[in-house]
Amino acid sequence: MPRVVVDVMPKPEILDPQGKAVLGALPRLGFTGVTDVRQGKRFELEVHEVNDDVLAEISTMAETFLANTVIENFTVRVEDK
Amino acid sequence: MPRVVVDVMPKPEILDPQGKAVLGALPRLGFTGVTDVRQGKRFELEVHEVNDDVLAEISTMAETFLANTVIENFTVRVEDK
Repeated sequence: MPRVVVDVMPKPEILDPQGKAVLGALPRLGFTGVTDVRQGKRFELEVHEVNDDVLAEISTMAETFLANTVIENFTVRVEDK
Repeated sequence: MPRVVVDVMPKPEILDPQGKAVLGALPRLGFTGVTDVRQGKRFELEVHEVNDDVLAEISTMAETFLANTVIENFTVRVEDK
């Protein structure tokens, strides 16, 4: 079955404490070269079929339920399994 | 600056209560057609440059720090901004 992925990330202007915590820990673990880290959510939705209606419904689902659009952006894309 | 994305998802055989909660709520919100939902984490890492060493370092970072490999799988990929 086709899979639709919804990625939800904090908006760039919003402080991302989780990302900052990961970024702060990297040097202590010996990792260098990463200049910024942002952490968000990934939803994998299994659907019977992918068409414009299904993608429109998933966008509405993301906007009203999966993401808090005051502080988060989201993207919807079809992923080959 | 190039961006490397690390996606961390629960292993298929692992129960995903968050995904199940989302799946269970969809019909009440009027959404149909989604047969399964899995929820994971998405990390966006900004790096100075992308090369094999950096990707190897990020894979080690994912394996030892970003993911709990007992219950989670992860993928590492370079994303065009």
